[in-house]
Amino acid sequence: METGNCKEIAYMLGRINAVDEGAAASAQRHSDQLTKPPGSLGKLEAIAYQLAGIHGGLWPDLQRKAVVVMAADHGVCEEGISAFPQEVTSQMVLNFLSGGAAVNVLAKQAGADVFCVDIGVKSAIDHPDLLQHNIVRGTANMTKEAAMSLEQVLRAILAGVKVVDELAEQGYQLFATGEMGIGNTTASAALASVFTGLHPGLTVGRGTGIDDKGWLKKVEVVEKALALHSPDPKEPFLALAQVGGAEIAGLVGVIIGAAANGCPVVIDGYISSVAALAAVRISEHVQPYLIASHLSQEQGHAKVLEAMGLSPMIDLDMRLGEGTGAVLGFHFIDASLKLMQEMATFESAGISKE
Amino acid sequence: METGNCKEIAYMLGRINAVDEGAAASAQRHSDQLTKPPGSLGKLEAIAYQLAGIHGGLWPDLQRKAVVVMAADHGVCEEGISAFPQEVTSQMVLNFLSGGAAVNVLAKQAGADVFCVDIGVKSAIDHPDLLQHNIVRGTANMTKEAAMSLEQVLRAILAGVKVVDELAEQGYQLFATGEMGIGNTTASAALASVFTGLHPGLTVGRGTGIDDKGWLKKVEVVEKALALHSPDPKEPFLALAQVGGAEIAGLVGVIIGAAANGCPVVIDGYISSVAALAAVRISEHVQPYLIASHLSQEQGHAKVLEAMGLSPMIDLDMRLGEGTGAVLGFHFIDASLKLMQEMATFESAGISKE
Repeated sequence: METGNCKEIAYMLGRINAVDEGAAASAQRHSDQLTKPPGSLGKLEAIAYQLAGIHGGLWPDLQRKAVVVMAADHGVCEEGISAFPQEVTSQMVLNFLSGGAAVNVLAKQAGADVFCVDIGVKSAIDHPDLLQHNIVRGTANMTKEAAMSLEQVLRAILAGVKVVDELAEQGYQLFATGEMGIGNTTASAALASVFTGLHPGLTVGRGTGIDDKGWLKKVEVVEKALALHSPDPKEPFLALAQVGGAEIAGLVGVIIGAAANGCPVVIDGYISSVAALAAVRISEHVQPYLIASHLSQEQGHAKVLEAMGLSPMIDLDMRLGEGTGAVLGFHFIDASLKLMQEMATFESAGISKE
Repeated sequence: METGNCKEIAYMLGRINAVDEGAAASAQRHSDQLTKPPGSLGKLEAIAYQLAGIHGGLWPDLQRKAVVVMAADHGVCEEGISAFPQEVTSQMVLNFLSGGAAVNVLAKQAGADVFCVDIGVKSAIDHPDLLQHNIVRGTANMTKEAAMSLEQVLRAILAGVKVVDELAEQGYQLFATGEMGIGNTTASAALASVFTGLHPGLTVGRGTGIDDKGWLKKVEVVEKALALHSPDPKEPFLALAQVGGAEIAGLVGVIIGAAANGCPVVIDGYISSVAALAAVRISEHVQPYLIASHLSQEQGHAKVLEAMGLSPMIDLDMRLGEGTGAVLGFHFIDASLKLMQEMATFESAGISKE
């Protein structure tokens, strides 16, 4: 393992500041003056306090929003665990780049920009808008060998950090995680089992839409990979190498990068949440920068969010990934900040308090 | 009971058309061509089919959105069941009219207009933007007598219908229900118990924020009102008169009016959902026009939604009313329609299907 990359990651982690509890408390004091019963806006108030804490004052400007979609292929597809063929990964990358995917439509609605990264796609894609950070041309089959080397994991994480560093430099202030990778719910289920200790029967879901037989097969595949590697939950880098995916490692980097840049990051569905949990296991200092968005149909998702102390805002029974749920969450982050800045106070509106 | 008002309501109910199942099926066929696994957008797909069914074709234009906020006072406040004094109802009406309330901020964000109706406020409010449809200057104390007369219930419903008729005439195509009325979670809990059969211990919540002692008192108050009137769930008009509220009856009218005008209506929190359930009990033909928005902190809310076969999209732990949750739901309705109209198809994007 190259010590240079280790040092660089340690340096990034050192850049993450503790949030400003005083600013969060000021935000709450402000909120309690607004014309509503205290706490009645629920998570919209909690998010406002969190954002003030991250920003270090009232109120951050989060107009410029980016969703980073990490794309990669998975060797475990050989085991027949997905409803879609592997070539769909690169076909969907082109769809992201031409603006035709669900995440493009939802990002446009939310005033966000989509950035697509080749972090581990099998075949090279030549497109001027694709961010080229490939660290592997598809991972290896985790039921037979480690999906990646530790070195590749570190490179993927640093690539994710770099993408966010550059976007923050361009003025983006709010990030969302997205991904594309046929087979990646299998890798996510394996990592979820590693970090939560739950049996694969509780972390494996239906992905893009497999039937009961396909689901049982997928559980067996995850069991086999876990039996082969016995990943240690206290070694998150190694676990990512053994049973992870390049896009999951890349998203760990996006999350660390957002925290290091003092920017909140909205977490999408199952795969993104597993990446967030890996990031929290690498450094708990990233946790205050995370905002959960939706609860997906993947059965393991709620447990992974719980393991980080996160609670979702949206319940749309989605199971698409790409960052679609996170981008929908942007509306509520905007709502939270607008409420704090535009509502009347009890005093200004002449309203009696309890 | 004036038979004229009965006939008018019967006429409105007769105006509600069955939804077009063929259009809903066409919508699903279209959706299954889009670049995503079938069904993976969850409720966003279901809403698109519902909207197509209501519209009778692909796709409705729902740009012009209105949230109707019905305001009223409650005689049951004498029993000391709210954390806020009764005068807050009219103070908040002025806050809606000057744009300082939470619903104003959220409506502006969602591109919607707020219409505030005096349907039962205690003291008359003179304001050019207030829609004047007062049917009672505060209801009576339901623990001692019927909250309203049956005649007043019918007038409130017809007022709600009229408000929507006029807005539909002006070009509004999508509606949301909102309300303001100190004491109205008490009336809603009573109605929820009537229509679901649940004990008040399961339908009474914390409202604007009462403590344990206040909650026990509120349960007793609802029990007392139910014991006095023994409302019959098969007589929804009468139940509204006995233990309801003017704003709840007004919202029944908004919901019937939306359905009669062929417009979908987004249901806010507990009070609005109780109004929707009353509307469904009056005529089940309104049900296909309803879209649930958020799940509130009121403990009875989930059961009331279930009783209508509705499932919420948003889980923000809110308990504010006003239409705030419904207006947040507008973003997802827009998202649903944009996805259907802007996403690439498997064919246009050259993507392999399962």
